[in-house]
Amino acid sequence: MLQKIDHIGVAVPDIEAAIEAYTQLFGVGPSHREVVDSDGVETVMFEVGESRIELLGATGPESKIAGFLARRGGGIHHVAYGVEDVQVSLDRLAAQGLQLLDTRPRRGAGGKLVGFVHPKAVSGVLTELCQDDPAAAAHGG
Amino acid sequence: MLQKIDHIGVAVPDIEAAIEAYTQLFGVGPSHREVVDSDGVETVMFEVGESRIELLGATGPESKIAGFLARRGGGIHHVAYGVEDVQVSLDRLAAQGLQLLDTRPRRGAGGKLVGFVHPKAVSGVLTELCQDDPAAAAHGG
Repeated sequence: MLQKIDHIGVAVPDIEAAIEAYTQLFGVGPSHREVVDSDGVETVMFEVGESRIELLGATGPESKIAGFLARRGGGIHHVAYGVEDVQVSLDRLAAQGLQLLDTRPRRGAGGKLVGFVHPKAVSGVLTELCQDDPAAAAHGG
Repeated sequence: MLQKIDHIGVAVPDIEAAIEAYTQLFGVGPSHREVVDSDGVETVMFEVGESRIELLGATGPESKIAGFLARRGGGIHHVAYGVEDVQVSLDRLAAQGLQLLDTRPRRGAGGKLVGFVHPKAVSGVLTELCQDDPAAAAHGG
């Protein structure tokens, strides 16, 4: 079962301009900033209720969001739901015949375990499941 | 100040297929279904934590989401944040120079008061502020 919207990932062409705009929108600045070299992205987190907005800037032409930015400019890149156990959730969805991008969890930003549902299966929305239990994360991935 | 992600609006080309897929994803069916004639949309709500996913299907070619569906197919149409007072929030953002689509609240689905920020101001994301206090809604709009 999905527990909450963990975060919405927003791809942005200019990370500094986006930080300024979202700081105005939220009335407070970001809570966290991190470069994820393996993905070629810089992530900047804003807290809102039980969820976060994750701004995603490309750190170079090899970035995993470079294609999205070239096609679409800025915009929502993915939605992530918090789940208790990513593997259990992926298994449940696979058994129902939902098309997945991952059948096993992998390591995401911040040490989380994550798995993706294929956007074609859910109305064109790239959908992430993530699990932020550090104990569970320690023996997974 | 933004209180939470109230909902994410997802435009879908086939509402029945989308309901089936999101029921599989969430493990439970929708909580609410409503046709909003003035917008030419049918909205279907799924609860998740303090937020909701709002599937949006077009009821005809005049639908406010017809253009989006023609350009993009299914996908995330907008993000809505819950606020205490939409007018106060719009005034605060206007004073900061953020480009808005509405300077005064208007009536949205379910009797809420809503106002939109221009997507250009916030990295290409159509952004709604909404207020679900029934008492406040009664004297606004």
